[in-house]
Amino acid sequence: MVEIKPNERVDELFNTPLKVIQSKDYFAFSLDAVLLANFVYVPIQRGKLIDLCTGNGAIPFILSTRTKGEITGIEIQQEIYDLAERSNRLNGLDTQINFIHDDIKNATHRFGRHQYDVVTCNPPYFKKEQARDQNINEHVAIARHEIHITLEDVITISSSLVKQNGKVALVHRPERLVEMITFMKKVDLEPKRCQFVHPKQGKPANMVLIEAAYKGKPGLKVLPPIHVYDDKGHYTKEVWPSNERV
Amino acid sequence: MVEIKPNERVDELFNTPLKVIQSKDYFAFSLDAVLLANFVYVPIQRGKLIDLCTGNGAIPFILSTRTKGEITGIEIQQEIYDLAERSNRLNGLDTQINFIHDDIKNATHRFGRHQYDVVTCNPPYFKKEQARDQNINEHVAIARHEIHITLEDVITISSSLVKQNGKVALVHRPERLVEMITFMKKVDLEPKRCQFVHPKQGKPANMVLIEAAYKGKPGLKVLPPIHVYDDKGHYTKEVWPSNERV
Repeated sequence: MVEIKPNERVDELFNTPLKVIQSKDYFAFSLDAVLLANFVYVPIQRGKLIDLCTGNGAIPFILSTRTKGEITGIEIQQEIYDLAERSNRLNGLDTQINFIHDDIKNATHRFGRHQYDVVTCNPPYFKKEQARDQNINEHVAIARHEIHITLEDVITISSSLVKQNGKVALVHRPERLVEMITFMKKVDLEPKRCQFVHPKQGKPANMVLIEAAYKGKPGLKVLPPIHVYDDKGHYTKEVWPSNERV
Repeated sequence: MVEIKPNERVDELFNTPLKVIQSKDYFAFSLDAVLLANFVYVPIQRGKLIDLCTGNGAIPFILSTRTKGEITGIEIQQEIYDLAERSNRLNGLDTQINFIHDDIKNATHRFGRHQYDVVTCNPPYFKKEQARDQNINEHVAIARHEIHITLEDVITISSSLVKQNGKVALVHRPERLVEMITFMKKVDLEPKRCQFVHPKQGKPANMVLIEAAYKGKPGLKVLPPIHVYDDKGHYTKEVWPSNERV
């Protein structure tokens, strides 16, 4: 039995049969997580994957539809870790996915250096000082703002976790792409694949998906853009595909 | 009177009323130059613009339709400079555009540091060692391969020519975007606007337009993508617009 608390609801995880327990008190999973989990390279039959700042576990859940590998999700906030852990049991995925309640700064010490084929992260997007609206609740602030962790920390930790030629994939705002690339290059992560997400045709990108290879050779491929909504305001096939799942 | 030699032809410059003299012995202007000249920020009424590695002058000619500013084009190859210079007289633009036959490595010495509002360049795309086909003619090799000048040289020279908050805009292959950004950051050029060009819907980008501001604040904007051809193989409106011209 999985307990659902009064302020929680059980949502479908986008176009999957999976469930996520969400709470209106915390940050809900977003399209960003869904697109990252569908974008990243995954080994299909085996391998070790880790999702940093996993929140309520959306990325590990979607990854489980694409790989039989062993997936870890790590989340600093106890209450949000608890959502992920219960959703995991609800989905019967706890043999494949392991959620850990910890600070990602401890990840290398805890899991060892260069053990993972894939590292993903949907990090806080905004700088600490951009937490303009001081009234937002602390849980949301931690998920959205660089309060406990900065972009450079996330990239440095990812680099220390990933195997040679393993992949590190992040989703972020295009405004910070230059920083991402700069931080990646500093720690031997070579950006290899990149995809821009535009809310609709004719609009600037509001999201970027980027995948780097640890000690990879230089050479970036920019994939076809994703447009989220069509002219009628419906999701396009690019974001709601009829993916083949394992 | 402008002389046209036997191996030369006078082409229309894309969707402008301008002419360019081209020779089958040399590198013809390409869509890359056209898109860069239409992408870059230009001051409309006045200002100083310079195009490095100008070839037969396509970028200065298109810029002249967007600004009343003073435009310089610099080209290392005598024969190609000569094409640009004759096209300039053919177009009656020699009061606005000045072509110079020189190595861009002399540009800072010749024109002074930080004198330009806008610096553009459509540089050689390929590394020297990638000049696989040793049979290509030398003029084309110099235009396409980093024989006389590298990407880092172009960016360093651009930075030394541009004014504070002036713009440097380049067109290149996405494969080398990471290098471009890295070299730009080294010389205080902050990438501010970026646009990817895809040959058609659903294909990876094969060109990137990027504009940096000298000593600008961080924050990149990624514009809507450009698709060159539609499903029927015709140019899209994005590349063949009915632009307003000054």
